[in-house]
Amino acid sequence: MAKWVYGFGAGLNEGRAEMKNLLGGKGANLAEMAAIGLPVPPGFTITTEVCTHFDSHAGTYPDGLDAEVKAAVARIEGAVGRRFGDAARPLLVSVRSGARVSMPGMMDTVLNLGLNDTTVAGLAAESGDARFAWDSYRRFIQMFGGVVLGVEHLRFEDIIDAVTHARFLAEDTALSAADWQRVVSGYKEVVEAETGKPFPQDPWAQLWAAIGAVFGSWMNPRAVTYRKLHDIPADWGTAVNVQAMVFGNMGADCATGVCFTRDPSTGENVIYGEFLVNAQGEDVVAGIRTPQPISIASAKPGETAMEQVMPAVHAELLRVRGVLEQHYRDMQDIEFTVQQGRLYMLQTRNGKRTAAAALKVAVDMAREGLIDEAEAVKRVPPAQLDQLLHPTLDPRAERHVMSRGLPASPGAACGAIVFSADEAEARAKKGEAVILVRIETSPEDIHGMHAAKGILTTRGGMTSHAAVVARGMGRPCVAGAGAILVDYAAGTMASGGISLRAGDIVTLDGSTGEVLIGRVAMVEPQLSGDFATLMGWADKCRRMRVRANAETPLDAETARRFGAEGIGLCRTEHMFFEPDRIVAVREMIMAAEEAGRRRALAKLLPFQRQDFVALFRIMAGLPVTIRLLDPPLHEFLPHGPAEQAELAAALGVHEQVIARRVVDLSEANPMLGHRGCRLGITFPEIYEMQARAIFEAAIIVARESGAPPIPEVMIPLVSMKRELDITRAQVERVAGAVCQEAGMKLDYSVGTMIELPRAALTADAIADAADFFSFGTNDLTQTTLGLSRDDAGRFLPHYVEQGILPKDPFVTIDREGVGALVRIAAEKGRGRKPGLKLGICGEHGGDPASIAFCESVGLDYVSCSPYRVPVARLAAAQAALGAGGTDRTA
Amino acid sequence: MAKWVYGFGAGLNEGRAEMKNLLGGKGANLAEMAAIGLPVPPGFTITTEVCTHFDSHAGTYPDGLDAEVKAAVARIEGAVGRRFGDAARPLLVSVRSGARVSMPGMMDTVLNLGLNDTTVAGLAAESGDARFAWDSYRRFIQMFGGVVLGVEHLRFEDIIDAVTHARFLAEDTALSAADWQRVVSGYKEVVEAETGKPFPQDPWAQLWAAIGAVFGSWMNPRAVTYRKLHDIPADWGTAVNVQAMVFGNMGADCATGVCFTRDPSTGENVIYGEFLVNAQGEDVVAGIRTPQPISIASAKPGETAMEQVMPAVHAELLRVRGVLEQHYRDMQDIEFTVQQGRLYMLQTRNGKRTAAAALKVAVDMAREGLIDEAEAVKRVPPAQLDQLLHPTLDPRAERHVMSRGLPASPGAACGAIVFSADEAEARAKKGEAVILVRIETSPEDIHGMHAAKGILTTRGGMTSHAAVVARGMGRPCVAGAGAILVDYAAGTMASGGISLRAGDIVTLDGSTGEVLIGRVAMVEPQLSGDFATLMGWADKCRRMRVRANAETPLDAETARRFGAEGIGLCRTEHMFFEPDRIVAVREMIMAAEEAGRRRALAKLLPFQRQDFVALFRIMAGLPVTIRLLDPPLHEFLPHGPAEQAELAAALGVHEQVIARRVVDLSEANPMLGHRGCRLGITFPEIYEMQARAIFEAAIIVARESGAPPIPEVMIPLVSMKRELDITRAQVERVAGAVCQEAGMKLDYSVGTMIELPRAALTADAIADAADFFSFGTNDLTQTTLGLSRDDAGRFLPHYVEQGILPKDPFVTIDREGVGALVRIAAEKGRGRKPGLKLGICGEHGGDPASIAFCESVGLDYVSCSPYRVPVARLAAAQAALGAGGTDRTA
Repeated sequence: MAKWVYGFGAGLNEGRAEMKNLLGGKGANLAEMAAIGLPVPPGFTITTEVCTHFDSHAGTYPDGLDAEVKAAVARIEGAVGRRFGDAARPLLVSVRSGARVSMPGMMDTVLNLGLNDTTVAGLAAESGDARFAWDSYRRFIQMFGGVVLGVEHLRFEDIIDAVTHARFLAEDTALSAADWQRVVSGYKEVVEAETGKPFPQDPWAQLWAAIGAVFGSWMNPRAVTYRKLHDIPADWGTAVNVQAMVFGNMGADCATGVCFTRDPSTGENVIYGEFLVNAQGEDVVAGIRTPQPISIASAKPGETAMEQVMPAVHAELLRVRGVLEQHYRDMQDIEFTVQQGRLYMLQTRNGKRTAAAALKVAVDMAREGLIDEAEAVKRVPPAQLDQLLHPTLDPRAERHVMSRGLPASPGAACGAIVFSADEAEARAKKGEAVILVRIETSPEDIHGMHAAKGILTTRGGMTSHAAVVARGMGRPCVAGAGAILVDYAAGTMASGGISLRAGDIVTLDGSTGEVLIGRVAMVEPQLSGDFATLMGWADKCRRMRVRANAETPLDAETARRFGAEGIGLCRTEHMFFEPDRIVAVREMIMAAEEAGRRRALAKLLPFQRQDFVALFRIMAGLPVTIRLLDPPLHEFLPHGPAEQAELAAALGVHEQVIARRVVDLSEANPMLGHRGCRLGITFPEIYEMQARAIFEAAIIVARESGAPPIPEVMIPLVSMKRELDITRAQVERVAGAVCQEAGMKLDYSVGTMIELPRAALTADAIADAADFFSFGTNDLTQTTLGLSRDDAGRFLPHYVEQGILPKDPFVTIDREGVGALVRIAAEKGRGRKPGLKLGICGEHGGDPASIAFCESVGLDYVSCSPYRVPVARLAAAQAALGAGGTDRTA
Repeated sequence: MAKWVYGFGAGLNEGRAEMKNLLGGKGANLAEMAAIGLPVPPGFTITTEVCTHFDSHAGTYPDGLDAEVKAAVARIEGAVGRRFGDAARPLLVSVRSGARVSMPGMMDTVLNLGLNDTTVAGLAAESGDARFAWDSYRRFIQMFGGVVLGVEHLRFEDIIDAVTHARFLAEDTALSAADWQRVVSGYKEVVEAETGKPFPQDPWAQLWAAIGAVFGSWMNPRAVTYRKLHDIPADWGTAVNVQAMVFGNMGADCATGVCFTRDPSTGENVIYGEFLVNAQGEDVVAGIRTPQPISIASAKPGETAMEQVMPAVHAELLRVRGVLEQHYRDMQDIEFTVQQGRLYMLQTRNGKRTAAAALKVAVDMAREGLIDEAEAVKRVPPAQLDQLLHPTLDPRAERHVMSRGLPASPGAACGAIVFSADEAEARAKKGEAVILVRIETSPEDIHGMHAAKGILTTRGGMTSHAAVVARGMGRPCVAGAGAILVDYAAGTMASGGISLRAGDIVTLDGSTGEVLIGRVAMVEPQLSGDFATLMGWADKCRRMRVRANAETPLDAETARRFGAEGIGLCRTEHMFFEPDRIVAVREMIMAAEEAGRRRALAKLLPFQRQDFVALFRIMAGLPVTIRLLDPPLHEFLPHGPAEQAELAAALGVHEQVIARRVVDLSEANPMLGHRGCRLGITFPEIYEMQARAIFEAAIIVARESGAPPIPEVMIPLVSMKRELDITRAQVERVAGAVCQEAGMKLDYSVGTMIELPRAALTADAIADAADFFSFGTNDLTQTTLGLSRDDAGRFLPHYVEQGILPKDPFVTIDREGVGALVRIAAEKGRGRKPGLKLGICGEHGGDPASIAFCESVGLDYVSCSPYRVPVARLAAAQAALGAGGTDRTA
């Protein structure tokens, strides 16, 4: 026979913490606390299955529920020696919702249920405190009226205000029993006026109405939306908790409070929280009276700690804290009430905490022996680590928000507005801190982005050029702040009536996306020893390697410092934009024939070789994956007339020749155009030069170090095996020639990006020609979803808001679509070539949920921007421990 | 035990026609002919398995081959009463390659093998014709030297020229025996000089060298390339045929010839071919002497038919023709030799023929009872039908080719050059025939394309806008003629030193891609009764339905005339470009808010409704699939300053407002941008207006005809089920409202394009919300291969040429990539919803090989441009008969 009701407290604990699915989080933990001997007022939980029945049977209850609830109430009555509706010793209860996961948007709590015109008198007589009784009654009507009957909050406030005014009082705390009685009368009138019925006097009617309201709230629009956004199935349902009331507002020996078992902002191992004497739960939150600290140690001047006021209760609370931490093995967030000197526990759950606290709590608890190292590793949300790696705004500083964009690259930055990359560079050279503001950025802006302290764009998403490059450089970036209108000609940026000019100071918060006017104070990151300790533990747990996407020596060094185990993606085209190379690159593009291209490429060779020498030195002993030229050639040509004229002069041709070539090379959809290996096949001399630079650099470093590096040459945008055959043969030919010239042998491998659906679908054939696959999930997302990341800003935010897409697919991998292709490719590739090395080098390589996916398909490594390396190390460890991808329910 | 050699002729026929895989086409047919009693000189075939062995064992032969060849030669010797190398009665043989499919690029033929300095004398004595003997010997040295020893052809020519000159003769036919003997001496010197060895005198050495050369030629670069291009596996191998020589050059009672059993250009049921008296095979091809016709009926004045010269042989040839047609049940292409009045058959194979002939032969043979109707349907290559549906250039007219592009839309057109759509329309209105020349076309050019007789573009591929629209309209089109430089400002087009101006006359051959200077005479298509007969048979055979892609009444009518069974794709955006609508469309786009958009859409509603009324009337009783708005909005805005000014005036706003909106809406990759259902979701009022127009039109036609049409509303660019949920709900809401207003019920369905990889991969979920899927393989190809069809022109031709891709994937579906997704989607969709209707509406719907693929995945219909409908009907029939997709080996 189905069981719908589970008792807890007073010696009967039918639930347990692990029964959250049936009893909800709150109900399960109440039973758990009672079971381990903590003081929990007796009560019972109506299961989530009743909710499911309620939803699927037009708001009716299963047979037998009525009898079970009656029996459960009777048990409470017995335990506390009171009766529901009794005029002398009335039983009062609280009714609370409690789903499997905490869910704002649902009905929360009704306290003091059971009070009516009769029982209020009993409560007054019994407590000897009429003021307390009438106050409790009015609180009950107010909460019940609000959450069960749907009466607007303001209507009740007005009545209190009226009474307070009539009595010439400043605060309602000064109201007397008679005053509260007047308030109750007013409340009841409001309820009758609003609902057309008198306030229910029958405690059973009150109880069933409250239960029905909780179950009904599961399907209210706010809750439905919340579930959609958080991917919570509707059929989980909520439980209802009915519990005997204890009163923190019965006098000076009563209190109510909330506290954390450790400091949630620092993680320090001290109790941290606040309480109010003679108050009921909602008063702490309401902010009418100022709560006081629990411990003397955390009291500020003028505050009185519970440790002083109620030393015995405080001691009991410390004991409970110890029991809870021993039992739950995690920092707890608890609610309690003290009634006449006795402590009652009303809730416990794992406490939310800052990144710093998460780190310290995890490491401390492992050291204390509460948890093991693996558990500690699972305790720190990887995405939060970012907070620890970048300077952040001082939380105490004042902020004047001008506008808001996407939090594209974390950290905070402050400086003078500049509107061009050249100006950014020029002013930075003079030691000035600048913020580069662009409608969007392109590879031509790289030098300016490097020079700037932070980057702001008004167009583009989380994986726009600006966002990707900024993350790679560790520069804070706010992207796609669409409400800001940038006028390059006027040198202004404006939003909501505020206009700033070049040279004005702004501050960017790359972690929230805020654009702030003026200078805001910042806090430098402090990497504690705990950080290194935890990362060490993470490294022991993980299976996947973590590499970095890096081109410059600076990026490579940053990556190594953060623990990267090689380079997973060196985008050679970034090296082409340096001022000392771009002219030769453009000369190559302008050449009409192969001979001309080869002449220009010969000028580039020494630069490229030197680039690779530098990288190989920094990454000594580690793999370096070098992707040959990928973007379409037109990206390298100047688009403005001035720059075109400059190039024309440099090459000794007419300006129109340049302009015509720009038009000739322009593409309708460059993302799907003449790029990647398609360039390598139509202009083989380009890849030949790059391969030569790679192998010559490897020889140089091999000679000087005695330990030859192992370059991994990566061919981009392959969609057919023949493309890889042809380009691989080119690379091998050059490798053979270079080795022969040097009289040395070199180990190297040749692999391909898997970044087009066709490559994934034909990965078995492609594997025959590849030593490794690296999933380029940026482009794979663009093609699989038919979604240009540069253009998606117009509708993608709307899609995510509306829950059409659960998350931005450029941030977290789309498992059903892109993920399906990755899985197909991994299986087909390994099916053909069991040892095939598999990695990922798209932006997803630094995203914890995506990293969990990578673990699930058995990739060998992830590669991400240097500043994401610690995040990836931790996420990879969690994924290996089977803890990844579930942060939603954490 | 393995058998390497199969004999034929003289009573021992070990092979059969169906053993092509083992014996090659030629060997199998020689055995077959001999087996059915036709006069075939005896010989033997060395199997393709020997070739495979030869390739995989460093050019050596399997054990036992030597003995089998010896025995086979001995059998020929016995049969013809001659001996190999015999001084008196030498056996001479031919050695020919012969693969499973005919394959240019391999060694072909060596005749007269067995001649040497000794046997030539025997041949001379025996035939009584020393001239014949020495001519035969020099022919042998020349062929053997060329194809076996690799001596350049010219070296031999020089010697004949020298001897001819020395004798003051004009032609080598006048050379005497002594002259030929001198030629032989010269030839032998050349061979020794070139190869360092004397010409081999041992007939066995000659034979093995020739056999080795044939097998070796299987791997020569030309053959390897050919196989790659035609997707022929290397392990098929070639066979070698060794056959007793018969001589057509032994005197006036000898001859050689080739003929078809029916006229290969008209299909008429008469023998058709040519012959030469006293000649050997290659003379017919070489063109030194003019061959004569076989029959008197086909002789031109001054020609002498074989029927007159050799009436008995002619009669025998007619008998053989009858036997062959009865046996092979197809028109044959035969080679024969007459030696001393006796006819010998050297080869037969199915004859190549024109589209008209294919049609007539197939229908005739079915009527004659040689084949059944289904077989007749299989006999006509669907792609050739196009030739019959469009005017074509008179093959006898002179052509001055200016340049060449892609044969983008078949047929020929001639007219004055115009460089703008407006001018095309203006001049066409005056009755002038014009050719619209554009660098590329856009939807704004549609009116000009309609007005023009033909379209020429210098950019874009087979599925560029110009190509697709032109095929849809049945306008001839040459696309992507990249060598032509168009200068709009100067009003010129130039290529290879030739410059034409606006107004000059050009002719386009849309079937070859040629751009011709001036007017070229044309031939109008004549659709015979045979055409209708064959299409009727095809319709009985096919399972898939054939629909058309059509928007205009004209297109819809054309489609019906060609047998379309409904509309599979009505692209509503094409309707937006008409001059009377485009202003309202632009007003809608310029509106800042929904109310403004709705006002503009209200103006469009009557137009759209009228469009659908017209289509529903034409397609009475047939399904009409209407795709809601698909392209990004910026496609509708004017891009030139003049047009922008015009729009600004029309809307009463500043020009800069227009210009800014154009910039605002511009996209980096419009193909992957804000289009399709993404528009329907962000601007629901657009789809609402379109749905209203559809349903109101359906009501109107239902009322006037009593037979309500069944609109199929199609949502484009869906990649997630939620997108379809949302847009479907919009459509259903409007349908409900319209039906209620009209007090009528309407049947309709709502489905989606499957044109993004993610849609295919998640087709099971999407099927829940869809009544049908229509595969949009144009966009699916673009996304799956990461290939913009507008930009692919720079490398795709190179890819196809190099065999990296076997065919243009925009013409024939890429089975491994795009096809895999179509299959996944079909299986997942039908797995979830067994009755799900599946169709295809990409350009591939009109391509025979792609149609065969559609049959193999079980689609319900294909939809193609109106002029492709007959092609699709025939291809669908062939696919159902299991004959499709194999045209490569046909």
